[in-house]
Amino acid sequence: MKPSLPSGTRDFGPEVVRKRNYIFTTIREVFELYGFQPLETPALENLETLMGKYGEEGDKLIFKILNNGLNDPKNIDKARSAFEQVMTGRNDKNLTERALRYDLTIPFARYVAMNHGQLSLPFKRYQIQPVWRADRPQKGRYREFYQCDADVVGSYSLLNEVELTSIYANVFKRLGVPVEIRINNRKVLAALAELCGGSDKMMDITIAIDKLDKIGIEKVKEELAQRGLQADQVAAIENYLAINGDNQQKFAAASDLLGHLEIAQKGLAELKYMLDMYEGSEVVIDFTLARGLNYYTGVIYEIKAIGVQMGSIGGGGRYDDLTGLFGVPNIPGVGISFGVDRIYDVMEELKLFPSTVRTGTQVLFFNLGERESLVAYRLVQDLRKHGVACELYHEPTKKFDKQFKYAEKKDIPYVVIIGSQELEAETCIIKDLRQGNQITLPQSGLVGFNFDTAVSEQIDK
Amino acid sequence: MKPSLPSGTRDFGPEVVRKRNYIFTTIREVFELYGFQPLETPALENLETLMGKYGEEGDKLIFKILNNGLNDPKNIDKARSAFEQVMTGRNDKNLTERALRYDLTIPFARYVAMNHGQLSLPFKRYQIQPVWRADRPQKGRYREFYQCDADVVGSYSLLNEVELTSIYANVFKRLGVPVEIRINNRKVLAALAELCGGSDKMMDITIAIDKLDKIGIEKVKEELAQRGLQADQVAAIENYLAINGDNQQKFAAASDLLGHLEIAQKGLAELKYMLDMYEGSEVVIDFTLARGLNYYTGVIYEIKAIGVQMGSIGGGGRYDDLTGLFGVPNIPGVGISFGVDRIYDVMEELKLFPSTVRTGTQVLFFNLGERESLVAYRLVQDLRKHGVACELYHEPTKKFDKQFKYAEKKDIPYVVIIGSQELEAETCIIKDLRQGNQITLPQSGLVGFNFDTAVSEQIDK
Repeated sequence: MKPSLPSGTRDFGPEVVRKRNYIFTTIREVFELYGFQPLETPALENLETLMGKYGEEGDKLIFKILNNGLNDPKNIDKARSAFEQVMTGRNDKNLTERALRYDLTIPFARYVAMNHGQLSLPFKRYQIQPVWRADRPQKGRYREFYQCDADVVGSYSLLNEVELTSIYANVFKRLGVPVEIRINNRKVLAALAELCGGSDKMMDITIAIDKLDKIGIEKVKEELAQRGLQADQVAAIENYLAINGDNQQKFAAASDLLGHLEIAQKGLAELKYMLDMYEGSEVVIDFTLARGLNYYTGVIYEIKAIGVQMGSIGGGGRYDDLTGLFGVPNIPGVGISFGVDRIYDVMEELKLFPSTVRTGTQVLFFNLGERESLVAYRLVQDLRKHGVACELYHEPTKKFDKQFKYAEKKDIPYVVIIGSQELEAETCIIKDLRQGNQITLPQSGLVGFNFDTAVSEQIDK
Repeated sequence: MKPSLPSGTRDFGPEVVRKRNYIFTTIREVFELYGFQPLETPALENLETLMGKYGEEGDKLIFKILNNGLNDPKNIDKARSAFEQVMTGRNDKNLTERALRYDLTIPFARYVAMNHGQLSLPFKRYQIQPVWRADRPQKGRYREFYQCDADVVGSYSLLNEVELTSIYANVFKRLGVPVEIRINNRKVLAALAELCGGSDKMMDITIAIDKLDKIGIEKVKEELAQRGLQADQVAAIENYLAINGDNQQKFAAASDLLGHLEIAQKGLAELKYMLDMYEGSEVVIDFTLARGLNYYTGVIYEIKAIGVQMGSIGGGGRYDDLTGLFGVPNIPGVGISFGVDRIYDVMEELKLFPSTVRTGTQVLFFNLGERESLVAYRLVQDLRKHGVACELYHEPTKKFDKQFKYAEKKDIPYVVIIGSQELEAETCIIKDLRQGNQITLPQSGLVGFNFDTAVSEQIDK
């Protein structure tokens, strides 16, 4: 039998895990620096926790777990009845009661609803875990992938928006990824809807605007018309979408267009507060930003990497009511998300992973015989005590090439050779595989050797 | 709707995640120190990869994923046929093709079989990921839990067994958990089977011996008799199980009993080599150790924590053929596993988690007004640049008690207070919440303050 992986899933070998962990660790460190706390929820959730939360399309993409014991001949009656239910379009608990986590937001909401008595609000949590979606697999889209979220719940304060902006900036600065942090405010979009005849137009407008990048202004105008907007309303939206210039100029233009509406004033004031508090030049007002999800009510974010062709590598926004669905109303929040797979691709393309990320073992000790290996093994253990990752080749052999090849394949920068001569003289040869040169040291000097630095520099000393 | 968790699953809140990560990080650091490389496989595997690998009981405990689209009315014919198959005891691919990872060994074998052309052998990998089992939930047994494995494949060398012993010792030393590393060799058990009439007795003997701890020697003898062993054979096994003393005495006794059999000599020599190479006193020969899994062929391990009532907190052993099931024969290996949930419980019981593990935010800045908070926010950002995790209370309020309570609930050791007086004088008050004392500093001196040390010590300086 030739084994294979389910489509849309991936194995991550050592080098990829190390690079991914570099991204995760960087993000985690910044989250912690800002007082966010880790949360982990189970991969399995009750089906009713997830169903109905992601729209009709989303429901279809949730992976459901078959109840155990169904295909046991003993359960045939139970199974038959469960299947009949399903065949008439109903989900039967006898068939499936559990499903795989589809995102991190609903499990977080479920957690907050279950624990809000014990939590001290505002609760700042971060969560880095895989999610599963039965999407059609395609390039860059997987059925199992990590999400990486930070949310503050239980606070209306705009300071949270400022902090999240600063987190975005800080993370991408540490990763070396040049970005634009695009922000808008759903209140400004609500004002636009008001200008176009009422809040019932909000959904139509955001859905159409959200496609601007992909389909261009003419198609957006067509779609708006199809959605029942009048010519003058479409023209107003076109004016709005044409707003450009630097942040100040954009503010002025938006004020001209929408400033007579109270909700626009509020939205613009919030954006202005954020720009005043967070002074980084990477923050760009983008009034064309809409974000499809209709639970956003305030500031929204989207991150674009500069200098590469890639969709957004992060996004988020403020929402009014996280846990109402679970019977606990009035818990507002604001959150951001990092698109780790895309960040990985950007960093590969821009060659941003530090070379040290790949390094596992620093030193391979050759194994040149029973007696030699005994001495080598003691030295290996000594070095490990001093924090140097090292290995003794797994079996005695006189074949140097085999051992060199092992070091090379594993990208090990140093080998230490103790043959019969060195055994006699109580010395060892340290060979720097990247530079190709070597040095002979007494075995007792090995612990003091700096395996982070090239051999040649240590010869010069 | 009142939300709940599927039975047998858990949320991990901030404090628990931090403690668990402390264990994971410690283990990961040691694995890396010994040249092991990280691997991650998907949670979803093809059903055929997993089925038939864990015995009949295991097969029933595998969580299977319902194919998507089945309960779509459009698919009713497909669904009906799939269900009919299942009702006649067959797994139909139209119903389920995928399942959740049940352990880390089979996915690892699948990975090696798929990639053995590219891997440089021996391949040392570690893997720390959750697995899922439809076991009946009970105290200490979950349906979703982490496994934490290290394996070396592609090498028959006993040096690997020595290294894994050393890894066990090193990890538990770092965690502060006192342990016995119990080792035995399936070759010695094979010799015992030979003594009792042949290798076909091996399975019966190991299954019975494996229960010794739980049911005692008399019941083991009964079981052996029921399994068809003769009285003299049962007596020989009783003699074998009675072997005790220190490692040397045990060797001598086992040699007396089984030394005339070649396979016993081999097994004892392997154990002796391990003891010679790894000199820690925590390694204990335990000839009663059997380990149920019948794929083990050489050295086997089991870890017991000293001073607590707890089952084994780790185990492993050598196997002959990891990937034969997947069409790639002759890849032997040896591996160990850490039982993280139990290690966690042991560390809680023995109070072994360092107090620093719990610490998230180091400093909370009070937010006492718009103007005050502006200054505070700049200082917060400065401290973060110097690696100090800190927060500004999320909204301006004159209520000290609210802000103190937030710090207390989050276990934040320091608060910094900037009120109108301090604003004027460009100072700030640093309050040490653990000691209850405080110090006033110029704001410019804040970055130099050591938030790892008590205020009182810094006053004395």
